[in-house]
Amino acid sequence: MKLNKFSGCGAIISPMTKLGKNVRIGDRTIIYDNVEIGDNTIICNDCVIGEPLNSYYNEMDSYNNPKTILGANSLIRSHTIIYAGNIIGDHFQTGHRVTIRENSLFGSCCSLGTLDDIQGYSLFGDYCRLHSNVHIGMHSKLGNFVFVYPYVVFTNDPTPPSDICIGPTVGDFSQIATGSILLPGVIIGKHCLIGAGSSVTKNVDDFQLVMGCPAKVIKDVREIKDRETGEAHYPWPYRFDRNMPWHGIGFEQWDLLNNKQ
Amino acid sequence: MKLNKFSGCGAIISPMTKLGKNVRIGDRTIIYDNVEIGDNTIICNDCVIGEPLNSYYNEMDSYNNPKTILGANSLIRSHTIIYAGNIIGDHFQTGHRVTIRENSLFGSCCSLGTLDDIQGYSLFGDYCRLHSNVHIGMHSKLGNFVFVYPYVVFTNDPTPPSDICIGPTVGDFSQIATGSILLPGVIIGKHCLIGAGSSVTKNVDDFQLVMGCPAKVIKDVREIKDRETGEAHYPWPYRFDRNMPWHGIGFEQWDLLNNKQ
Amino acid sequence: MKLNKFSGCGAIISPMTKLGKNVRIGDRTIIYDNVEIGDNTIICNDCVIGEPLNSYYNEMDSYNNPKTILGANSLIRSHTIIYAGNIIGDHFQTGHRVTIRENSLFGSCCSLGTLDDIQGYSLFGDYCRLHSNVHIGMHSKLGNFVFVYPYVVFTNDPTPPSDICIGPTVGDFSQIATGSILLPGVIIGKHCLIGAGSSVTKNVDDFQLVMGCPAKVIKDVREIKDRETGEAHYPWPYRFDRNMPWHGIGFEQWDLLNNKQ
Repeated sequence: MKLNKFSGCGAIISPMTKLGKNVRIGDRTIIYDNVEIGDNTIICNDCVIGEPLNSYYNEMDSYNNPKTILGANSLIRSHTIIYAGNIIGDHFQTGHRVTIRENSLFGSCCSLGTLDDIQGYSLFGDYCRLHSNVHIGMHSKLGNFVFVYPYVVFTNDPTPPSDICIGPTVGDFSQIATGSILLPGVIIGKHCLIGAGSSVTKNVDDFQLVMGCPAKVIKDVREIKDRETGEAHYPWPYRFDRNMPWHGIGFEQWDLLNNKQ
Repeated sequence: MKLNKFSGCGAIISPMTKLGKNVRIGDRTIIYDNVEIGDNTIICNDCVIGEPLNSYYNEMDSYNNPKTILGANSLIRSHTIIYAGNIIGDHFQTGHRVTIRENSLFGSCCSLGTLDDIQGYSLFGDYCRLHSNVHIGMHSKLGNFVFVYPYVVFTNDPTPPSDICIGPTVGDFSQIATGSILLPGVIIGKHCLIGAGSSVTKNVDDFQLVMGCPAKVIKDVREIKDRETGEAHYPWPYRFDRNMPWHGIGFEQWDLLNNKQ
Repeated sequence: MKLNKFSGCGAIISPMTKLGKNVRIGDRTIIYDNVEIGDNTIICNDCVIGEPLNSYYNEMDSYNNPKTILGANSLIRSHTIIYAGNIIGDHFQTGHRVTIRENSLFGSCCSLGTLDDIQGYSLFGDYCRLHSNVHIGMHSKLGNFVFVYPYVVFTNDPTPPSDICIGPTVGDFSQIATGSILLPGVIIGKHCLIGAGSSVTKNVDDFQLVMGCPAKVIKDVREIKDRETGEAHYPWPYRFDRNMPWHGIGFEQWDLLNNKQ
């Protein structure tokens, strides 16, 4: 490649920033005060890291930017905006034009897709994967290994408009398929599958396949078999290991070693 | 804050621009010809205000940019694009990456969320609030105090593709919940609540809760009571006043003073 | 217009680029290695053309950017990102903030709306028109004259998460209305109309109107008549010719000349 993505042309980095070793910063990317970035992290062009909170516009001179931590070995694609106050684990990835408002907590190995819009004050476990154009309302909670597909919305206001804000909670290993809406405060168990285009209005027990508007229980996910082989599709960790920590050793072995699930 | 958001680095401002007092312009923001901006308005980095219309690309030298007015005390967040020909009231706010095509009219105190896509030739009353990722098709009409939640789409072509373009109309104080689709030309009354994920195919009378695909009348919104307190949730202005003009005096008093509703 | 959109300020163009005659490049646009751009094409500000693939971040010095071809007489609006490896026909148009991942093939006269997210490895015929905020999953196939409306998602994983990736296929002249989801691998015939907000879970024969979640056959599109005139709305090419190749001569005549449909 003749043209280097990391010439650093026009990048602006606050002197109050702590950069790890071998961090690369793209053109015109801005890093505001009190940001810490781990080793080997790549931030592409036109990103903003540590975007000041709304109070900045009123306080100006007296404003102090909250601390932002972005883990090591991460890849932030172009035009991503990460507000101040986020604490983000290692091996984090974003697509393009992701917006992450203030004060969320992300475990390690999370990835967010292009155009994702994370509204802040939310908790993400390890290995959460959000595909493109997912909207996570404030005060949502996602466990570990939660996969969310395009155009899913996590809502949080039960009687709009109001000052109540209770986001959904999603258990470990659950999957929320394309275009689904999680209503305010719903609690979804572990290993669930929410079918495409569903509106989830009630809590969902572990291992349930739910679907529809409003979503109804269809069956236990363990009953979903492959038409040709007859093998069970779910729980998915037994058959899928791409970029998962049980890659190579299998989920059963990994699960034993980690006492999880 | 050591790093200033408004160093003005790389901003380009047409000489044919009228800036109010104390306007702040972010890095690399471009303001094209014939834009007027009110006092104390803040425009963050990487915005475009007065984006030339499509005819610019053909006419070039003879092109005249239509007048654009952006009111006082407004806050335009980064990467927002506002086309020429918009007339926007005071106290306007946008999230990040908002796109506003040409020739809409916005009252005062409107706010648009991150990724909103306003297609142009639409009317917005005062205090309209659109959350993230709302799509307003051309020739839509929103009254005053209309709240629109994420991923709502206002459509306008009854027999696609065609040259007919009739957008929806939404009355004062109505709420359109997450992921709903308003079909072309539907007229929604005042104080309505459209449930999440609905497709609204017919007109809706004042005070109706409608829901489903296609949306059906469920009940009068005034029958929606709080489970614990038994108090009515709607009409919402009696119980919600954050950033509303009746804050402090109550809606009843404000309504009397203004002869509105 | 006093302020010129194409002053070229801050644009970066790889020396390994082949620009046609009269190509105009906006401020801060980046064109990476091995991009070919046809005559008279306009690329607005803050675009990226030939964005390097993911392997760039690991390989760096040894990385070779795949060839990207962008046809003549095209208009790429601001903040659009086109990855390397795309082959795009003439008269291509994009709205703002479009993202096109690697290795898709576009016929001539295609247009993509603001915020569209094309995930790569897909095929588009001629005259495909995607409105705003459409998501096309990997390995999708669109015929000629396919119109896709806002917030439609083409999905591709039948048992998420998995390594299977089979996108939908849409036949010539079909219309996918707002907010519909096409499930993995569905095949939609020619001249179909998918109603707004549908989830299409099964294949659809030619000329069908389908609607709902899951989508069901409602009627033959040729039975949809105008209430006032009694004329048939579909097949639409007989009554709509804006920017279509049969403009002026009529679809019947054009169809005879081209032996298509």
